Amino acid sequence: MANSTDCVYIASPLPELRKDPIVGRWVIISTERARRPLEHIRVPPPQPASGFCPFCPGSEDKVPSAVYTSPDRGAWSVRVVPNKFPALRVEGDIDRQGEGLYDKSNGVGAHEVIIETPRHDVVLADLDEADIERVLHAYRERIIDLRRDARFRYVMVFKNHGAAAGASLEHTHSQLIALPVVPINVLEEMRGARHYYEYKERCLFCDIAKQELSDGRRVVYHNDKFLAFAPFAPKQPFETWIVPKTHAASYEDHARDFPLLANALRTTLRKIQAALDAPPYNFMLHTAPFSDRDAPHYHWHIEVMPTLTTVAGFEWGSGFYINPTPPEDAATFLRELDT
Amino acid sequence: MANSTDCVYIASPLPELRKDPIVGRWVIISTERARRPLEHIRVPPPQPASGFCPFCPGSEDKVPSAVYTSPDRGAWSVRVVPNKFPALRVEGDIDRQGEGLYDKSNGVGAHEVIIETPRHDVVLADLDEADIERVLHAYRERIIDLRRDARFRYVMVFKNHGAAAGASLEHTHSQLIALPVVPINVLEEMRGARHYYEYKERCLFCDIAKQELSDGRRVVYHNDKFLAFAPFAPKQPFETWIVPKTHAASYEDHARDFPLLANALRTTLRKIQAALDAPPYNFMLHTAPFSDRDAPHYHWHIEVMPTLTTVAGFEWGSGFYINPTPPEDAATFLRELDT
Repeated sequence: MANSTDCVYIASPLPELRKDPIVGRWVIISTERARRPLEHIRVPPPQPASGFCPFCPGSEDKVPSAVYTSPDRGAWSVRVVPNKFPALRVEGDIDRQGEGLYDKSNGVGAHEVIIETPRHDVVLADLDEADIERVLHAYRERIIDLRRDARFRYVMVFKNHGAAAGASLEHTHSQLIALPVVPINVLEEMRGARHYYEYKERCLFCDIAKQELSDGRRVVYHNDKFLAFAPFAPKQPFETWIVPKTHAASYEDHARDFPLLANALRTTLRKIQAALDAPPYNFMLHTAPFSDRDAPHYHWHIEVMPTLTTVAGFEWGSGFYINPTPPEDAATFLRELDT
Repeated sequence: MANSTDCVYIASPLPELRKDPIVGRWVIISTERARRPLEHIRVPPPQPASGFCPFCPGSEDKVPSAVYTSPDRGAWSVRVVPNKFPALRVEGDIDRQGEGLYDKSNGVGAHEVIIETPRHDVVLADLDEADIERVLHAYRERIIDLRRDARFRYVMVFKNHGAAAGASLEHTHSQLIALPVVPINVLEEMRGARHYYEYKERCLFCDIAKQELSDGRRVVYHNDKFLAFAPFAPKQPFETWIVPKTHAASYEDHARDFPLLANALRTTLRKIQAALDAPPYNFMLHTAPFSDRDAPHYHWHIEVMPTLTTVAGFEWGSGFYINPTPPEDAATFLRELDT
C-alpha cells in the first residue's frame, strides 16, 4: 500500500474549473483545504454556540476585511466578507486551456459571505422584515459591484442553513460566488424559457405565476408584488419558489420591491420552520446572467428547498427526483399555517 | 393553525410523473407511504443486523414474488423482486395529460430490488467475482425482459449502499426503475456525445478511454476489457467510472465481458472501501436508451460515487460542483492501494 501522505498531500495549488466533456457541466476543483482523503471530505461539525465565532461583533479582525457593510447606529447590521476558504480565487485573469479533449480554466471567481446580523442567537427567519430587507440590499450591492468586473458572467447567491444543508458555521449567513461562466442550471432555465417565449411571445415564469394564482392549490403565500408557491414538479418535498408577480429579469434592478420581498421571504421561511420542525434548508437566487439583464423571457426568483430527503443513486443517475409529497399537499399545509 | 391530519393525509393516490415546465426535468410524485409532513420525509434508519430481514432466505414469502432467480445448488444466489414500496406502479397504460401549461403522466413503471446474495453479513465488495458476475447477469436479464414492454423507454440500474447514500435496508441489494421516458441525465449525455460524434465521427467515450489510458494519471485500475478511472471533472471526491475499453452502447448486449466487468467492479469497490473507511456510496449504470441500442456515439458505463460531501445551495442553484479532491490525487491514491 502506498504512503497516503506522499501521494495525496497538496501544496496548496490554485483552484481549477473543469468542464465535463460529456454534458458540459463545470466543476470547481478546490484544494484550499485538501490534505489526505479523509481529512477534507467530511463536513465539519457546526460551530458550537459557546465557542469562538468569527462572524460575531468583536471578531472583525479574524476574517478578511469587509467588502460591504450596512451601518446601523454606529455598529453594523449586515457585513459581507470574502470567504476565508474560497472555492475560487479573486486574483488573476481567466486562462482557458485544453488538455487533450478536455477543457479547463484557472479558478478565478469571488466567494463571499453575507453575515446577515450581528446576533449569534437568531436565524434568518427570526429577523424582522426591515433586517431582512438590509440583507436583500447587501446581495444587490455585491451583485452590482461584481458585475463591473469584466471577468465575471454570473453571481450565484445562496444560503445553506444547518449542517445537513452544508452550513459549516452556525452564525446565520448566506454566500455568493461570482463565476466566469454562466452555471448550467441557469443556462437550462434560460433555454427552456426562451423556447417557450419563441413559441408564445410570453414569459414562461409570468404565465406560471398567473396560472398558480388562478388555480390556487399550490399557493403558499402572496402579497401585492410576490408569489410564494410550490412548483408543479418539485425536486424535494416542501420546495417553495418566490417569484415577482410581474415581469422582472434581474434581481438587482428591482430594489424598490425589496420591502415586499422581505415580507414574502420571511413568511415563507417561518412557515417552513414551523411546519417541519426548523429543518435544514437551502435557498438559491436565480437571476438573469449579466449579458442578458433585460431578457424578456427570463424572470428572477428564489428557490427555497428544505433538506428532507437524500440524493441517492436514482437521482444521481437519472436526474429524476422521487418526491413523496405532492406539492398541492405541501402548499396547503404551509398556506394554512399561521406565522 | 390548520389541522395537519386533515389537510395532508393522502388516501394512497397513484404516483404521477410531472415535467418541470422550465428545464424539462421529470419528477415522480410518489405517495405510496405519504402521511403527514414529518412522517414520510425522514430517511428511515437502516435495518439492524439482528432484526427481521425481508431479503434473507426464509423470508421469501414476506416480499413480492421473484421476477428472476439465479439458482445455486438448490438454493438461490441472486433474487430480483418487485419493490414493496414502489416509486412507480407497473399496472396500466401511459396516460399523458396537460394541466394548464404543465405536463404530467400517470406514474407507470417498474421498480425492482436485486438481492445480491442470500448472506446478510456481507457487502457487495466482499463477494467473489463469480458472485458479482451473477448480479451483473441479473441486471441484464431484467433489462432484456423489461425492454419487451412497449411502455418503457429506459431502465436505470443503481445501488445505494449505506444509509447516507439512501439505503433503507442493510442486506446488500441494488435496484432498478423502468421508465416511460428517457431520464434527462442520459439525454444530456446522449446530446453531448452526439455533438462530438457529428464533429469527429468518433465516440467521445472511446476517445476518453484512450486518452485516460495513455495519460495514466487518472487511471484507477484496468484489465483487458475495462478501464476504471477518475473522470476529469468529477462531481464528487473519489468518483470513479468504469467503461468498456472498446465501443459498446448497450450493457445488456455485452454479457461475454461480464467476468472482466465483475473483476473491475469488485476491484474498484474494494479500493474505495479500503481508501475511505467503507464509505456510503452509490453506483449508477448508464446504458443507451432502448430506441438507440446500437448508437455509434453512446457507450455504456458505471459511475461509482462515494457519498462524502453534501449537496448544498451552490450545487442546487448552479449545477456546478465544488470538489476538494483533484481526480489525479484520488486516482493515485486508489491505484496504489492493494485490494
